[in-house]
Amino acid sequence: MSEHRQKALAYAQEHNPQSLDKMKQIISIPSVSTDPERAGDIRKAAEWLKAELTALDMDRVEIFPTPRHPIVYAEDLSAGKDKPTVLIYGHYDVQPEDPVDEWDSDPFIPTEKGENLYARGATDMKGQIIACFSAIDAIRQTGDLPVNVKFLIEGEEEIGGSYIETFIKENQDLLACDFFLNPDTGMQAPDMPTVTYALRGIAYFELRVQGPKQDMHSGSFGGAIHNPAQVMADLLAGLHDKKGRVTLPGFYDRVKPLDDDEREELSKLPIGDEFYLEQGGVKALFGEEGFTAVERTGARPTLEINGLYSGFIGEGQKTVLPAYAMAKVSCRLVADQDPVEVYEQFKTYLTENAPDTVTWELTQMSKDFPSLSDRKSKWIDAYVQAAEKTWGKRPIFKREGGSVPVVVHIQQTLGVDSVNIGFGLPSDNMHGPNEKIHLPTFYKGIEALVHFFFNL
Amino acid sequence: MSEHRQKALAYAQEHNPQSLDKMKQIISIPSVSTDPERAGDIRKAAEWLKAELTALDMDRVEIFPTPRHPIVYAEDLSAGKDKPTVLIYGHYDVQPEDPVDEWDSDPFIPTEKGENLYARGATDMKGQIIACFSAIDAIRQTGDLPVNVKFLIEGEEEIGGSYIETFIKENQDLLACDFFLNPDTGMQAPDMPTVTYALRGIAYFELRVQGPKQDMHSGSFGGAIHNPAQVMADLLAGLHDKKGRVTLPGFYDRVKPLDDDEREELSKLPIGDEFYLEQGGVKALFGEEGFTAVERTGARPTLEINGLYSGFIGEGQKTVLPAYAMAKVSCRLVADQDPVEVYEQFKTYLTENAPDTVTWELTQMSKDFPSLSDRKSKWIDAYVQAAEKTWGKRPIFKREGGSVPVVVHIQQTLGVDSVNIGFGLPSDNMHGPNEKIHLPTFYKGIEALVHFFFNL
Repeated sequence: MSEHRQKALAYAQEHNPQSLDKMKQIISIPSVSTDPERAGDIRKAAEWLKAELTALDMDRVEIFPTPRHPIVYAEDLSAGKDKPTVLIYGHYDVQPEDPVDEWDSDPFIPTEKGENLYARGATDMKGQIIACFSAIDAIRQTGDLPVNVKFLIEGEEEIGGSYIETFIKENQDLLACDFFLNPDTGMQAPDMPTVTYALRGIAYFELRVQGPKQDMHSGSFGGAIHNPAQVMADLLAGLHDKKGRVTLPGFYDRVKPLDDDEREELSKLPIGDEFYLEQGGVKALFGEEGFTAVERTGARPTLEINGLYSGFIGEGQKTVLPAYAMAKVSCRLVADQDPVEVYEQFKTYLTENAPDTVTWELTQMSKDFPSLSDRKSKWIDAYVQAAEKTWGKRPIFKREGGSVPVVVHIQQTLGVDSVNIGFGLPSDNMHGPNEKIHLPTFYKGIEALVHFFFNL
Repeated sequence: MSEHRQKALAYAQEHNPQSLDKMKQIISIPSVSTDPERAGDIRKAAEWLKAELTALDMDRVEIFPTPRHPIVYAEDLSAGKDKPTVLIYGHYDVQPEDPVDEWDSDPFIPTEKGENLYARGATDMKGQIIACFSAIDAIRQTGDLPVNVKFLIEGEEEIGGSYIETFIKENQDLLACDFFLNPDTGMQAPDMPTVTYALRGIAYFELRVQGPKQDMHSGSFGGAIHNPAQVMADLLAGLHDKKGRVTLPGFYDRVKPLDDDEREELSKLPIGDEFYLEQGGVKALFGEEGFTAVERTGARPTLEINGLYSGFIGEGQKTVLPAYAMAKVSCRLVADQDPVEVYEQFKTYLTENAPDTVTWELTQMSKDFPSLSDRKSKWIDAYVQAAEKTWGKRPIFKREGGSVPVVVHIQQTLGVDSVNIGFGLPSDNMHGPNEKIHLPTFYKGIEALVHFFFNL
């Protein structure tokens, strides 16, 4: 280990109290992006970041205004052209604190209890941002940066703002990098460093099935006029076969099969059937034959009904034969599926299966591509070694079932791969009351990042 | 034709202007049963009926209070014990006049235009009540009543009040009769007298399918936790087979088959596929193989989805795996199906078909039996002959697809058959704006009723 690295690690460790203090400062600003009355707090959080990045001695720190909440950008390219450039992504906005009654302490007064610090935004993701700042500070205070660094920190992640996509598209030169680091994923357990190497894409649809031109009397017309809710049920039921597979024509054609090596890796995750049974409070699981629950939720595409409506849904009864039925349906996609192709497949399915007693309309509401990183890339390898140094063990590799469009957008627009890691735990109550961060893991995270930056 | 009958017919004809005037009087009282602010008008309508029935020289006229809107009762048993007793059912309440903007004249100012009188309640069913009053008045003014008469006129029909059922149960001696006349059905056309000899029953259910204990993230859990909206779709889809038949086990066991004679009779109805295609504005019809649309909607049982809900149904998208799905499902029943047996059949179906990944709950919300009258009973025969005298043609025979619970309750509780007729037309806009009654048909109706009472 180089002397600089040793000094940086020692510095980081000595300055854990300062790191904790910084985290408390930024957490105390209630930067709830969805609340128009807190636009001032959002601005305040952006200014706080600007001040901190300036104190970190970045070459350039700038707040970019957007139609809603500003983007904070910073860069330090002092390592030079023969060193790699990492773009660090983050968001400084937080979820609302609702339901506020269920908090044991004020959501915006950081409260230490045992090994945890409780507050909204602690784990998602202000703590993660501070870990990055502290690692860079430790390296910088003890020598030169071994890597070029850019920060891209937005304020609209929790409201699904799409402005960041425009910003990335319009600032490709500014954001040019060798890879990017997304510290917004997490760890499976405090002693289980984790690399998330895949995110599912999503194709979200609204399907409307129109029957008669208006609601009709189910006694006078039922049995002769086809009920569009019945047609909807038939169509939705046909979307899965008996093996739990999606029946859209060609749906699996582009799906990259799991090889034995990856299945072996995924089987190491401490997530078995018990986890899903307990989280759902259900008696039995469901899914595609031949795959584990972890594979089904991460490495296989799925189709879910997110919403369903037809006719009369109030209290009591109404004998209506509804004029139409509506369903929200979304497919989670894995590499190399294409959300627009899935739209075409859905239309083909409907053309082939909808009876001529109704008409239908299918609208695509989102089309985000899946992402799959090379588990053996040099960037991920740099983190694997950092984790081994920090926790004494190899990280586990995880596929994320959800979709993080910004990651895929950065990957696609800038043409770079990502390293998705983080120091949040499944028990951190992200988005819920009593959100927290586990402080020993936070401090280990700073240490891991110091190693990581030196390993690049 | 007896001299009395001839005089009564002549009297009725001469007094058509008076009948029209009476109808206008009762129609002018806005007895909208659902509107609490019009409770006074409801009361006023009941008092008006009481006064009219008293003027008809009934032996006994009484207003029975109920928890909500009063019941008007009257009787005249002067014909004597060797003559039959007819119980005439009616309701003096009306539907709200909404949407009031779509009326061409004030809904509660009876307005003559061409051969029609426009006003709320004209056809449903104040005009029908007045036709009965005028027929009895004509007979009485020209001699003795040839039949014992009882009137049961309620004020809660349009709000589905069930108090009438209690009243019938508790007043079986008072209401004792040989048969009852329900003049609340209608005619297919002005030259097409119609007898409705069957009403479908109804079993209305709410089905709830519970998946996970709370809404879940469809990306993290979709594919492993069974989506209850998907299960609902599967269960609902399975309720019909490819021939359009309902798959509930034993559903058709008690269904009385249609014989050739009845099919021949039903085929005379002027209602073909074109009617249903036009009413629904659809390109193609649906239904049970081997039956015409008229048979499907009247003589065969059906199962309809009346409402469907799950998850997120607002604008936009939400990636939720819903905690539960709900459906309102109702079966229209034909003789001799039993709505409680159908509930058991539905439970059996669910027990056999619902996967163990979910739980379900089935609630029965209504259980009204079907009714089928003998098309050749002497009471119906008396009306057939009356219609032949009045319109010069035999009535057509019709099964009603809807359910009229009060008819079945009277039939079952008092153990008597019914004669369901009326002088409303399909074009009368019952329940809609510009409700009307066709005056020539109304006058013919009075004539038919005079014949009917003499024929008994």
